[in-house]
Amino acid sequence: MVRGIGASSGIAMGRAFVIPTWEWDFPDKLIDVADLAYEFERLYDGIRHSKDEIEQIKQEFVSVLGEEQTQIFDAHLAILEDPVFMNEVQGIMQRQYKAAEVAVKETIEKFVNMFDLLDDGYMKERALDIKDVGNRLLKHLLGALEETLPPKDEPYVLVAKELIPSQMVHLDVNQTLGLVTMMGGKTSHVAIMARAMGVPYVLGVEGKLSTPIQTGDYLIIDGDEGLVFVNPPEQEIERYRQRRETWKAQQELLLQLADIPSQTEDGMTMNLAANISSIKELEQAIAKGTSGVGLFRTEFLYMNRTSFPEEEEQFVVYREVAERLNGKPLVIRTLDIGGDKHLDYLELPEEENPSLGYRAIRIMLDRTDLFKTQLRAILRASHYGNIKIMYPMISSLDELRRANDVLNEVKAELAEANVAFRADVPVGIMIELPAAVMISDLLAKEVDFFSIGTNDLVQYVLAVDRMNEQVAHLYDPFHPAVLRMLKITVDNAKRFGTHISVCGEMAGDVRALPIWIALGITELSMSVSSILHVKNSLIQSRQSEASTIWQELAACPSSTAVLQVLGRYWETGIAAASKGPKPSESDNSRPASGCC
Amino acid sequence: MVRGIGASSGIAMGRAFVIPTWEWDFPDKLIDVADLAYEFERLYDGIRHSKDEIEQIKQEFVSVLGEEQTQIFDAHLAILEDPVFMNEVQGIMQRQYKAAEVAVKETIEKFVNMFDLLDDGYMKERALDIKDVGNRLLKHLLGALEETLPPKDEPYVLVAKELIPSQMVHLDVNQTLGLVTMMGGKTSHVAIMARAMGVPYVLGVEGKLSTPIQTGDYLIIDGDEGLVFVNPPEQEIERYRQRRETWKAQQELLLQLADIPSQTEDGMTMNLAANISSIKELEQAIAKGTSGVGLFRTEFLYMNRTSFPEEEEQFVVYREVAERLNGKPLVIRTLDIGGDKHLDYLELPEEENPSLGYRAIRIMLDRTDLFKTQLRAILRASHYGNIKIMYPMISSLDELRRANDVLNEVKAELAEANVAFRADVPVGIMIELPAAVMISDLLAKEVDFFSIGTNDLVQYVLAVDRMNEQVAHLYDPFHPAVLRMLKITVDNAKRFGTHISVCGEMAGDVRALPIWIALGITELSMSVSSILHVKNSLIQSRQSEASTIWQELAACPSSTAVLQVLGRYWETGIAAASKGPKPSESDNSRPASGCC
Repeated sequence: MVRGIGASSGIAMGRAFVIPTWEWDFPDKLIDVADLAYEFERLYDGIRHSKDEIEQIKQEFVSVLGEEQTQIFDAHLAILEDPVFMNEVQGIMQRQYKAAEVAVKETIEKFVNMFDLLDDGYMKERALDIKDVGNRLLKHLLGALEETLPPKDEPYVLVAKELIPSQMVHLDVNQTLGLVTMMGGKTSHVAIMARAMGVPYVLGVEGKLSTPIQTGDYLIIDGDEGLVFVNPPEQEIERYRQRRETWKAQQELLLQLADIPSQTEDGMTMNLAANISSIKELEQAIAKGTSGVGLFRTEFLYMNRTSFPEEEEQFVVYREVAERLNGKPLVIRTLDIGGDKHLDYLELPEEENPSLGYRAIRIMLDRTDLFKTQLRAILRASHYGNIKIMYPMISSLDELRRANDVLNEVKAELAEANVAFRADVPVGIMIELPAAVMISDLLAKEVDFFSIGTNDLVQYVLAVDRMNEQVAHLYDPFHPAVLRMLKITVDNAKRFGTHISVCGEMAGDVRALPIWIALGITELSMSVSSILHVKNSLIQSRQSEASTIWQELAACPSSTAVLQVLGRYWETGIAAASKGPKPSESDNSRPASGCC
Repeated sequence: MVRGIGASSGIAMGRAFVIPTWEWDFPDKLIDVADLAYEFERLYDGIRHSKDEIEQIKQEFVSVLGEEQTQIFDAHLAILEDPVFMNEVQGIMQRQYKAAEVAVKETIEKFVNMFDLLDDGYMKERALDIKDVGNRLLKHLLGALEETLPPKDEPYVLVAKELIPSQMVHLDVNQTLGLVTMMGGKTSHVAIMARAMGVPYVLGVEGKLSTPIQTGDYLIIDGDEGLVFVNPPEQEIERYRQRRETWKAQQELLLQLADIPSQTEDGMTMNLAANISSIKELEQAIAKGTSGVGLFRTEFLYMNRTSFPEEEEQFVVYREVAERLNGKPLVIRTLDIGGDKHLDYLELPEEENPSLGYRAIRIMLDRTDLFKTQLRAILRASHYGNIKIMYPMISSLDELRRANDVLNEVKAELAEANVAFRADVPVGIMIELPAAVMISDLLAKEVDFFSIGTNDLVQYVLAVDRMNEQVAHLYDPFHPAVLRMLKITVDNAKRFGTHISVCGEMAGDVRALPIWIALGITELSMSVSSILHVKNSLIQSRQSEASTIWQELAACPSSTAVLQVLGRYWETGIAAASKGPKPSESDNSRPASGCC
């Protein structure tokens, strides 16, 4: 057994398939001057085929992973169009009379070395991209060496020194039990893809294995704990088999909860809504009995394209989502780009600290053209369903009022043009900056609802970027400062009769459920995969008991103490423990990679 | 008159000296194979001379700008040692038989183009570095073309298309009245240097001039407003001359305040201490009658060297500063690296959001070896003066206790070894994270003092990186959320008898003074240049009047309203207006580039 880094949770058990390290080995072939034109022809053909292939893969991939995860392929296409890269290749061919594949190989090596030398995480990732796209081009130039991929007919645990995104694409999700790589980072594209695909993944076991894993070895991958077992003894296999069975049984039990009322044992209703960013997720949410959509991230409409989506295109999507929800509420968050989310066709400045930078409402209040287009589409769709509008990253009354001014302008235009829309469409804001918490009394008076975005809020309160592995252990939603800020926000919302919900990942963390009950919050919006876990805990909770622990929680000097109080609640506070799997056994307390 | 961007404040008036755009123009000289060895010799000579020159400039520069601003030269040295850069140069010489200067020129162009293409602020800055160092190398290879620099005997306003850091070095500070460049950014190295040198600087006037500025044109540069007047009429010159005279007179008046008691008209004492990061600044602070050092940034001891400073070296500095202060308090902040401050010899991970990353106490609690060395040096120095220890970036009781555990360990070791130190040396923390504000009751019980670091606090509360020009306008110390957080912190400090002071830039902003008086804060620590400005306002204030406006401030829904209340206070609240320059006329309300 070796311990690596768990990069995608879950358990995988099965035979290893080891991808040999991908090394090109061909002679340093020279060409005749007379053949130069032909050789260039060959190069351009290779580039064209590579581009076609990437486009095709991208299309296939969209259906598996959704739009957001496929931006990597645009980066690859850009490299094939990069004049610097191409000049280098052509230069080597022209000046040294080397064959196209030799020139490409030398150029890849040169760029990769250069980027590696810069000793910069960002550039290292680019180096990997160049290697990836360069290898694809080489494959087309050599027309021979195919990638060694596992057999299509039996499931396997894939083992490699490192994986590149385009290799991930070739994987058959149904056959791939799990992944193990010697290298790699938890926030790499490959790791993000593995999580999105739901494939357990352990990385970073380089140098920890006494003998290398061989194809055919029996492996257990524990993506939660970051463990890899190579040819384990039978009792270990049995132990994991049981854990997997328990997990499966739990999943089935949970599915039965979809249609029962969402309330505590003693009758407090808690609406469990979904955070979605695609229509596919909407379907899953409906299947799990969602009370509505508490956060519709509209970014996906803007990604993987070459220009901003038109009003009509947006309208069609908003209307469809609203109609499918059949009267259940749909909270549409206006565009939240910037930070770590970029659009190819919107040039934004490079920022030293993008999370403290130009993003979300800050961009939209500058680019009122984009803002108005989106608001028009939302307002028009509001005629067809229970739509609410939510602004992200609000820090002051001034920003809120300026956003509302734009909204009112759009309403006036629509009214003027006799276009149907709901005139009193509810308008709310994300509470995700400490500033918004501190002035939540002022804000509450001017909006219809608050939605607490715990992910960013915790990040700013503690000054911790949770995607930064170096400080991720300091990212702590149960920090007393966070609890106190939640209390301030809820108190101010109640004081002014403003509806309040929570849409950060903390909403889907079952450990936190007694906090929401105690605070009197009646709506949580979470990732689709969390809904039934939380519901399972909810129906085993009693408002009368949860409410009593608030005083205790508020007095806690540390998150450790907070978690102890919550732990005791879950151990002792549940009246009827027989209805479903125990909350403590659910795998739902770990942060995923989504954003809110 | 044209409007650019004010990058360094102040007024400059005088004749223009225009630096011609620096273009190399020489033939694409080929060499004989037989001369290749000699040509390489020439290349290596050029590199050696360039490196010697950079080292020398760096040394000169340290005395002008201080250690922190000279890291740029290490970057330049690194380029001359970069194997990728050199391989490219040598490759062109070997394969194409081009002369060394031709190969260098082509390599510069190639790298600059490549970095420019990446369309990334960070890489663009690197491109400028490569251009800079490459030009220096070219100068040595060609042995002829000297930089066109202005005459040494008369003062001038320097005008250029763009300036590179090494050109700044050649400037005679006493002769350079001001700077104007067509291009450039407010946060560029050149802008930072101009501010550090106290030279007014306006940039970004490209395309705004009807005719280009000529050497000999009479210019007025208004670095505060970002204005450039070319051959202005006499009355404009007169107007600016008067403004400058007023400013000078004011400076002289201010100097007379150094020795009078630091208190309001009605007798409330307010200690005005200095934020320093070098012994040079300490001298200036003492000359201005500082009440002590409220923030001694120890980073400068760690910069511009190749390894961590030893205990003895640190001890000598801490002792000297303490002794020079002659019993006045000296608050030493433990090392605050990370974020935007790096050490060449401490490898830190690249971070997407360094301000939300691995820095300050977070590093020191991992690297207790470094932490202990520093604490030993501080404790030993505590025997010789009024020293206090301050931890930065504290977010939880746990971090504070872990830091204190290390401190106690060091104390025990010193006691064991019979080394003299002050056993009850006061220990405090920066309050600069929203989390620290929210749990300031818990923290107050366990420390001797708080120092509110408004710079970082405002940044995190509003999620605004103030160094980011795109959002700098949202950086707002007078935001009601900030005022409320100040109030919470002060109330908790008073409740537990914990001393409290403020050390962010807001402390040196005269507009904010009534806030501190009203909150009952009795110590402010600020940049040395602010001390007498604040004192001038202080002696014209009355506690009785300032205190009455708190209710009004607390009710303000926006920073605009807060600033209006403060404005009215300064207009009407000052009983005796004749003692010195009016606060509103001081230029002390604009944020400088320092950090706290």
